[in-house]
Amino acid sequence: MYKYSFFNDYSEGAHPAILELLAQTNLAQETGYGEDVFCREAAELLKAAIGNPTAAVHFVTGGTQANLIALSALLKSYEAVIAPRTAHINVHEAGAIEATGHKILTVPTADGKLTPELVQQVMDEHTDEHMVKPRAVSISHSTEVGTVYRRDELAALVQCCRANGLYLYLDGARLGAALTSEAADLTLPEVAGLVDVFYIGGTKNGALLGEAIVINRPELQSDFRFHLKQRGALLAKGRVLGLQFIGLFRDGLYFELARRANALAMKLARGLADLGFRFLVPPATNQIFPILPNDLIAELQKSYGFYIWSKADAGHAAIRLVTSWATREEMVDEFLADVRAGRPR
Amino acid sequence: MYKYSFFNDYSEGAHPAILELLAQTNLAQETGYGEDVFCREAAELLKAAIGNPTAAVHFVTGGTQANLIALSALLKSYEAVIAPRTAHINVHEAGAIEATGHKILTVPTADGKLTPELVQQVMDEHTDEHMVKPRAVSISHSTEVGTVYRRDELAALVQCCRANGLYLYLDGARLGAALTSEAADLTLPEVAGLVDVFYIGGTKNGALLGEAIVINRPELQSDFRFHLKQRGALLAKGRVLGLQFIGLFRDGLYFELARRANALAMKLARGLADLGFRFLVPPATNQIFPILPNDLIAELQKSYGFYIWSKADAGHAAIRLVTSWATREEMVDEFLADVRAGRPR
Amino acid sequence: MYKYSFFNDYSEGAHPAILELLAQTNLAQETGYGEDVFCREAAELLKAAIGNPTAAVHFVTGGTQANLIALSALLKSYEAVIAPRTAHINVHEAGAIEATGHKILTVPTADGKLTPELVQQVMDEHTDEHMVKPRAVSISHSTEVGTVYRRDELAALVQCCRANGLYLYLDGARLGAALTSEAADLTLPEVAGLVDVFYIGGTKNGALLGEAIVINRPELQSDFRFHLKQRGALLAKGRVLGLQFIGLFRDGLYFELARRANALAMKLARGLADLGFRFLVPPATNQIFPILPNDLIAELQKSYGFYIWSKADAGHAAIRLVTSWATREEMVDEFLADVRAGRPR
Amino acid sequence: MYKYSFFNDYSEGAHPAILELLAQTNLAQETGYGEDVFCREAAELLKAAIGNPTAAVHFVTGGTQANLIALSALLKSYEAVIAPRTAHINVHEAGAIEATGHKILTVPTADGKLTPELVQQVMDEHTDEHMVKPRAVSISHSTEVGTVYRRDELAALVQCCRANGLYLYLDGARLGAALTSEAADLTLPEVAGLVDVFYIGGTKNGALLGEAIVINRPELQSDFRFHLKQRGALLAKGRVLGLQFIGLFRDGLYFELARRANALAMKLARGLADLGFRFLVPPATNQIFPILPNDLIAELQKSYGFYIWSKADAGHAAIRLVTSWATREEMVDEFLADVRAGRPR
Repeated sequence: MYKYSFFNDYSEGAHPAILELLAQTNLAQETGYGEDVFCREAAELLKAAIGNPTAAVHFVTGGTQANLIALSALLKSYEAVIAPRTAHINVHEAGAIEATGHKILTVPTADGKLTPELVQQVMDEHTDEHMVKPRAVSISHSTEVGTVYRRDELAALVQCCRANGLYLYLDGARLGAALTSEAADLTLPEVAGLVDVFYIGGTKNGALLGEAIVINRPELQSDFRFHLKQRGALLAKGRVLGLQFIGLFRDGLYFELARRANALAMKLARGLADLGFRFLVPPATNQIFPILPNDLIAELQKSYGFYIWSKADAGHAAIRLVTSWATREEMVDEFLADVRAGRPR
Repeated sequence: MYKYSFFNDYSEGAHPAILELLAQTNLAQETGYGEDVFCREAAELLKAAIGNPTAAVHFVTGGTQANLIALSALLKSYEAVIAPRTAHINVHEAGAIEATGHKILTVPTADGKLTPELVQQVMDEHTDEHMVKPRAVSISHSTEVGTVYRRDELAALVQCCRANGLYLYLDGARLGAALTSEAADLTLPEVAGLVDVFYIGGTKNGALLGEAIVINRPELQSDFRFHLKQRGALLAKGRVLGLQFIGLFRDGLYFELARRANALAMKLARGLADLGFRFLVPPATNQIFPILPNDLIAELQKSYGFYIWSKADAGHAAIRLVTSWATREEMVDEFLADVRAGRPR
Repeated sequence: MYKYSFFNDYSEGAHPAILELLAQTNLAQETGYGEDVFCREAAELLKAAIGNPTAAVHFVTGGTQANLIALSALLKSYEAVIAPRTAHINVHEAGAIEATGHKILTVPTADGKLTPELVQQVMDEHTDEHMVKPRAVSISHSTEVGTVYRRDELAALVQCCRANGLYLYLDGARLGAALTSEAADLTLPEVAGLVDVFYIGGTKNGALLGEAIVINRPELQSDFRFHLKQRGALLAKGRVLGLQFIGLFRDGLYFELARRANALAMKLARGLADLGFRFLVPPATNQIFPILPNDLIAELQKSYGFYIWSKADAGHAAIRLVTSWATREEMVDEFLADVRAGRPR
Repeated sequence: MYKYSFFNDYSEGAHPAILELLAQTNLAQETGYGEDVFCREAAELLKAAIGNPTAAVHFVTGGTQANLIALSALLKSYEAVIAPRTAHINVHEAGAIEATGHKILTVPTADGKLTPELVQQVMDEHTDEHMVKPRAVSISHSTEVGTVYRRDELAALVQCCRANGLYLYLDGARLGAALTSEAADLTLPEVAGLVDVFYIGGTKNGALLGEAIVINRPELQSDFRFHLKQRGALLAKGRVLGLQFIGLFRDGLYFELARRANALAMKLARGLADLGFRFLVPPATNQIFPILPNDLIAELQKSYGFYIWSKADAGHAAIRLVTSWATREEMVDEFLADVRAGRPR
């Protein structure tokens, strides 16, 4: 149908190293429900990678599942979570958070990033029991528009959260891309050290499936497996999830794959910038949002898969191009060539 | 630790044919969230296998997830589901059904099976809006104690449900074992033709993960993907689930694996019966519950993994032995030999 | 503490006629849970007043209870309700709607009123199962800032709802004030004829407590008492609620009281306008929002109870003044005199 | 229709003293939502009556509302409450507890009363995160069959709860009847001192409506008003509820009314016992369950309202007779006379 798809970073299966791990370990008899030797090894690898030996690590199958379980575990029934208007939990989870009983308090942002000012404003408006009680802040890193938090931004947000008694939760569906971005000045241990709970996304960075929920604060760790079980997230063959993260973290594959995806996105971005195109937000990770003329977009859609993100003006729209660990570099080159060829004057 | 585990039917990974399918298709670019070519092919295979071309088929990652989504989709907020006291949804899902807001109305059973009389009794007790409104009946086939419904039993239950305006839901975590049991007189199309919604379990019959929810009645099919998404069950790489069921149903592997598991359980059961042991319920599928002396059990536990199910009397207990597609026949033989050798007089 | 309170319209008990009804009927033995003769009479009075003999009428104790039960009864688990950002259900119900599992999709408005354009925009953004499915629109009449829908506005909204398959729900906490506003061009039967479900507020218009939920569409009426019971809204002595609405609707007291409250608010508004003060929104019902200098506000707060609603500029704020059936006219006069006296030049 | 109703203890309105209080205070301007002077006075009266000055007291409109709010406030999402099979929360609240997401773990009882043995058995069965986690025990005092806990029974239950980390919750819909029963050996302060959270029922003991939730343990008190608001239980004119309990507790009316109801029930019970009739459970409070011949029951139903509770044998059934503060003693005499006259030989 398409010559090539830049729709997303989950169009292919898993990195071959992960499939090999599955095959190698296939007939070993193991305990079920995430208490197997592979999940334990994976948890140790992640605790080492984040530099927190007392963290609790749990593996789930997808990002919406991770978000709904982690946030509902953090919140009492009358407590709410603050998030950017564009947050995945607000827009693209079919009301999963509300289905667990919790309100999302949203604020508009320019670039998908929360600031202390935006959070404080919500706090100031919520003063008594006629309103929900804000209790957590949820950010995505990288965000839904591919931007990343810088060290000073995240530190300021943490300070604001602590001052207001708010947990800081990080949706790390594309944490790999954030950490290996040219714009990044935060390492994984640094990010992990600043947030209370987060998840490390596997699905969008080379895993067949799987996200790793990390709970830093010991007082938030107890009974978490009850939440997993109650929401249908405990896999009988939990080993499958542990093996994904062994594959990704035993030899640094996680960072290698993310770096590669970012590099190809940057190649696309620079090529488009060289041609004079602007972007919805400055390209930083594996999702970029160039603004193209509508007729060029129509032309490109004949050969490539991608989403039209938002209308820019009568004649232009921002599109979303996503690269991944599996993106073929020659397709990036070909896309740029096709843009050059088809570029309307 | 153990010489061999008879703990359950999900101690190993996937049947090798499924791993091969994953490898073969790994780099094909496909649509996400279950709308890929593999999920479509798998759905067609299942609709052919059940003989209902108008059924809707959806793939999820596990049994608790299948149950909570299917039942909550069937029920209005004040409606309840009737189930045996021993039902997985009642005992072993950490309150997953109640977490979606619904009461389970339970009845004690001798053998894990519901009867029209038991259902009618619940209906007779629920007469007005001070009580929940029973709206669905949930059965497991095979049941949590390995028993199976016979044709006349299931037909009578269906009739009772229709007379009372109740949906009939079937938890098919071990549907393969039920269909290939020596005690079975129902084919897959027959079972499918009698129930309103059910799921075909993959995890416990050779899949890496995955259960296929089948919605027979067209009026129950609409908007089901909203439920999947809201409960965190739509995998970005939904292809993974489709491929499991292609592997299981393209060439009848599903039935072959279940038959093998049953045969090994029957070998165990006959061997134990020959030695004079009784059973909690008559062995019929891949879960059997022999009643053994406590000192023999203690001896066997040194070499084999299995659960002690229930106390029988001061000196005896029922244990659960489970076989699977992956069970090694020589271990069955060895287990029987060890019983014979260790049998206390 | 205060000389007089303009905080709200529920600072006093009930209109004396209602207390008399309670006393007169006190020892009659009646059926419980809203199936008594008084609730039946009240329902008949309301059906006559709205001109819909086939409506279903149910009495509950308060507005949040009415909203959470009515909306959760209308919506499937993945369905959402569209409301103005300022809606009581969004801001002042402590997440009651979300606690029943449903998302509120909010839009900013100038005056607390939804328009077809605002609704359509939400519809256009919700296109697939990754997002919730908008299924109802909730409006308040009068709104949280005291404004009212005109006939053409409500008709246009109805048309938009029908075109989009949306239920129209009306929060009538202050429906009396809306219907008797000088700005109103809609009668009770006309409003009732345009919406699918609404409630007629008693608490804020002379009742001791009580709101009457009216379900116009027969297909939405079934099993509603299950919802009431499950949410803890069926009073054992439901007669108490029926008697409130007999008192309010047997002789038109409902409209008389609302008219009086509006008239006193208009007297306040005209007095303040004559003194040159502006308003946050044009005064129309028993809640008015004059913009006063901060030092005048501070002075007035020594004698009167009222809320500071929002900051207007560095030196001014909008305050909320509320009148009711019980407001003493001399206090309105005195307030105006004190404003005149204290008016900073 | 009936000459007289023994259906329940909420067939009439309120004790006249309460209506008088409403009338006397009607025009006082007061703060809304339960923060008024009357609610504060009522809370002080209750804290004095229970002998716990640090208790928190909140007023709600009914028993189901009290139960669902108190229990859901006590429990985390994966936690469950243990209750007798016959508990109001299990049978007669339309799944209200489950609608807040929590499972009720039920045990069969002979007389509606839990014992340490029954609780311990549930605890022993719940061992890991595949099952819900029992976290509270709910008892009714008096129970749904009119029985009462004695001091030693309640003390033993408390000890069992403490040993197992379980909160003890008491549904006091008919607490007055329990405390003034001839079978009672526990005072209100003693009961209050043994349980963690309970409610004092007003509706069934002379109030127009209203139940008082009492939270003894300080660590369970915080943020409770958020729960009230979110479940629609904060009345704008919360004063109405405070005034009920001022009326009941300022001069001991609560105990006087309950004692009277019990005395009339005992008169009925003794009269029936003298005629040779047996009872389902020994009569102790204002609900009694005599076992009568079916033809006598049919005869009595022509003149009196009462429920047939359960079939005893082919020719007999247990009926429920309920007396209240408002029961007319001559009707008790007449009922007994009619039994005597109609007694089949």
